[in-house]
Amino acid sequence: MSATAPDFFIERLGIVGVGLIGGSLARALKEAGAVGEVVGFGRDPAHLKKARELNVIDVAADSLARLASCDVIVLAVPVLSMHELLEALAPVLVRQTVVTDVGSVKGNVANAARKSLGARVSHFVPAHPIAGTERSGVEASFAELFRGRRVVLTPLPETDQAGVELVRGMWRATGAEVLDMSVARHDEVFALTSHLPHVLAYALVELLARRDGDLFQFAASGFRDFTRIASSDPFMWRDICLANRGPLLAAIEQYEDRLAALKDAVARADAVFLNEFFVRAKRARDVFGDKS
Amino acid sequence: MSATAPDFFIERLGIVGVGLIGGSLARALKEAGAVGEVVGFGRDPAHLKKARELNVIDVAADSLARLASCDVIVLAVPVLSMHELLEALAPVLVRQTVVTDVGSVKGNVANAARKSLGARVSHFVPAHPIAGTERSGVEASFAELFRGRRVVLTPLPETDQAGVELVRGMWRATGAEVLDMSVARHDEVFALTSHLPHVLAYALVELLARRDGDLFQFAASGFRDFTRIASSDPFMWRDICLANRGPLLAAIEQYEDRLAALKDAVARADAVFLNEFFVRAKRARDVFGDKS
Repeated sequence: MSATAPDFFIERLGIVGVGLIGGSLARALKEAGAVGEVVGFGRDPAHLKKARELNVIDVAADSLARLASCDVIVLAVPVLSMHELLEALAPVLVRQTVVTDVGSVKGNVANAARKSLGARVSHFVPAHPIAGTERSGVEASFAELFRGRRVVLTPLPETDQAGVELVRGMWRATGAEVLDMSVARHDEVFALTSHLPHVLAYALVELLARRDGDLFQFAASGFRDFTRIASSDPFMWRDICLANRGPLLAAIEQYEDRLAALKDAVARADAVFLNEFFVRAKRARDVFGDKS
Repeated sequence: MSATAPDFFIERLGIVGVGLIGGSLARALKEAGAVGEVVGFGRDPAHLKKARELNVIDVAADSLARLASCDVIVLAVPVLSMHELLEALAPVLVRQTVVTDVGSVKGNVANAARKSLGARVSHFVPAHPIAGTERSGVEASFAELFRGRRVVLTPLPETDQAGVELVRGMWRATGAEVLDMSVARHDEVFALTSHLPHVLAYALVELLARRDGDLFQFAASGFRDFTRIASSDPFMWRDICLANRGPLLAAIEQYEDRLAALKDAVARADAVFLNEFFVRAKRARDVFGDKS
């Protein structure tokens, strides 16, 4: 892990929401020797107890106030829970604690942080690790989840650079590659590359189910691959769609435009158009598609 | 292979187009001891020579007329080449040879067979093995391609039942499960489960490539799965789109309707609608999606 500063260390790390992402982060930092103590907090005490038993966290906090002594607090809760959590966290922040999150949408988190944290927003570093599995919960967490994956930081104009570097160091210690992007660019990029594909896959599966459930038995392996993401957590994806409404709507509209162009070409039996369209797509898929 | 009649045997099999599908069929029947001699024909002599060297075929025919003595002739050429091939084949058919195909679209083949074969259409059995890989060509062919996969037969009202049973026996000998469907139902089912998903994947990749090739670097594994089928042969898919125009257009329109419903729900931030839609899709995907 040459990218990790050898002396990178967080004395005390707080994690709110010890599930797949929060749990894997704790495991990775422990394995890298990059953290002293991990304090976990969450709404379900049984879940926290499990995280403690698995040694993912060292302390199961019984209130947010117990995170006050942390050097870094990671918010690993659903995107639509972020505002409420930041409201509750704001009075707890008495030190120069750096707060960061792991949400798939950054605009709504940035707005919530500005509203809830006031001047302390300078110590808030919005972040998005591009990693996950279809499974969820602390039992599914593992130290290698972020290795070789990307983490996007979207510092705000008012964000303190020292906090950004601390969060960057934390993610590098997990084996991830860290890069920076503006909030607006992030939300546009992930609307197109992640949120839109999920919406498209859900729409296709719902259409087939609505038409005739028997249709699925004729689906080949390509269909299975195509629709795998429709097995993702529907509640998480509902929240992401709502949190990233503007950029997602723009992405859907652009997609509708391309699909209509294809439909029109099929309707007029335009072999040349279809040919060029499909060749262009295949070339892009072959060149870019397997790098990430 | 309990589904195979133990005494099933084709003395002489002709294959026009010895690529992935035609080659794998020959290999599977040979491995099952279900064929005497395989005669191959195709437009590229070098390609046929390769098939002969690989022992996929026993004889490389230098003309369609050399297939006259075959008991079964399998047409494994692109769907839009079928009409021209049937026109050329019709004068060759002097015996009660059963002719069958492997195309992904059946309406256009049925029409072409009626036009080209006249009364001999009673010995034509339209068929569609639901199998394939991203690779193509005889070098990619292998005997196990059809094992456990489905083959759909779409006999016409005028099709002779003995021919249907012969083709059924042939595909069963490869380890496939064979079922019957009407031509219209087949083309509707595969427009929805196969042709539409390919169109959707091509449209997404083309949109991203058109917007900004750098977008692909942020795509996660779900995107890779979703767009894998956009790496399929663009010429084959152009042809399938043109051959199955009517049912494909209907499928695209139904899809546009569902996507518009999702878009409207996002626009009005309708959490309940999104929730129900995504849950319905996930349930269908989980129940049906991994069976096929």
